[in-house]
Amino acid sequence: MKKLIVAGIGAGSYDGLTVGAVKALEGADLIVGYTVYCDLIKPYFPDKEFISTPMMREIERCRIALEHAASGKLTVMICSGDAGIYGMASPVLELAAEYEVEVEIIPGVTAAASGAALLGSPITADFSVISLSDLLTPMEKIEKRIECAAMADQCIVIYNPSSRKRADHLKKACEIVMKHQSPQTVCGVARNIGRDGESCSVMTLAELAEYQADMFTTVFIGNSSTKEINGKMVTPRGYRNE
Amino acid sequence: MKKLIVAGIGAGSYDGLTVGAVKALEGADLIVGYTVYCDLIKPYFPDKEFISTPMMREIERCRIALEHAASGKLTVMICSGDAGIYGMASPVLELAAEYEVEVEIIPGVTAAASGAALLGSPITADFSVISLSDLLTPMEKIEKRIECAAMADQCIVIYNPSSRKRADHLKKACEIVMKHQSPQTVCGVARNIGRDGESCSVMTLAELAEYQADMFTTVFIGNSSTKEINGKMVTPRGYRNE
Repeated sequence: MKKLIVAGIGAGSYDGLTVGAVKALEGADLIVGYTVYCDLIKPYFPDKEFISTPMMREIERCRIALEHAASGKLTVMICSGDAGIYGMASPVLELAAEYEVEVEIIPGVTAAASGAALLGSPITADFSVISLSDLLTPMEKIEKRIECAAMADQCIVIYNPSSRKRADHLKKACEIVMKHQSPQTVCGVARNIGRDGESCSVMTLAELAEYQADMFTTVFIGNSSTKEINGKMVTPRGYRNE
Repeated sequence: MKKLIVAGIGAGSYDGLTVGAVKALEGADLIVGYTVYCDLIKPYFPDKEFISTPMMREIERCRIALEHAASGKLTVMICSGDAGIYGMASPVLELAAEYEVEVEIIPGVTAAASGAALLGSPITADFSVISLSDLLTPMEKIEKRIECAAMADQCIVIYNPSSRKRADHLKKACEIVMKHQSPQTVCGVARNIGRDGESCSVMTLAELAEYQADMFTTVFIGNSSTKEINGKMVTPRGYRNE
């Protein structure tokens, strides 16, 4: 049976790729992905054929990849971070039956882990990952998820904290968390992880509410035991009590 | 300044390592870790010096790694999955100041992502990661986190679902989720990810409540829109509405 590989490429650096993803990409006849992600990895695989499609054309991109795989080309579809988490594995699996193509998924390092590594160790224990993009999920549901996570004293990782159309979503999310957690809760942001201009900073929840995030930012909200240690954001696991 | 690297090694296969982790391990004078994880990667780095310590000796292990790093040895401390998520990055950062050692963290693929890739795409959208181990977190708090995630219709990934001392924790967690979600909710388990005997299966929430998980199992509970497609567990992202 013909096969399509869906691979997470991590944050964008060569070092952030898994060995399995490198092997799949080196063995590929064709690499399909969103333009920005294709441009990120092209320098590492200069001899490969790429097909890139712009943002918001996800179903079209999945069909292009499946059609080429069905025609017998060794095709790898790439996703930023992990292949599953806010990635293309799900729509590909939904469409695959139409093409009689087997799907193999290669996981990758998602921004919750790569951003955390920059900041210190903000998500050592239980945490919730929530996207503030309301393109596919109603804002009401997103707000309920934020509130429930804060009620349960969970660390929260926020993907897609902002865009032109929803500049105030992060502020709103912080205000919801502040109903249950102190404004002094230790928070952090990681920007351009694994790419040019990579940076991070640690701040309080009150400061985060005023922070202007962009679409290249991943946001970390600590739980009640998260602290700042030498400029790092650290959520203890509890080993100190050993 | 002397440096200690804390690296996530993924699930245990060579393909699951990131290129950055491979480089760090190849450059190391000494690799420190929990016995099981050291044994997993020894075959890939046969010429390296390893120091392994048994489970539950985490602080001792961190101090061994920091002492060797402080003495000028290029030391890498390894963690299963990611370096931060239920990993050693946090205790190392808490202790590092005592040793005047700089800490570099290399993220890895956590079981939420590698287990998901086996099952299909269970955590496409917002999800909560919760450990059922009550060694470091009171069971009451764990139960509240499970309940809050279920109330918010989030997918839930459960780490450490079982051990000899807490054989009924997974059943209890499922019963809490069933207060808010249908017993027919699509769930899945992944076992021995990236290792010998790797397997996964998809089942309902009611079936999961009766499932005997062991410590090598990662559990996935779907949200209200998760479905089974050709034996795969798939949480749609919503692109079908495009």
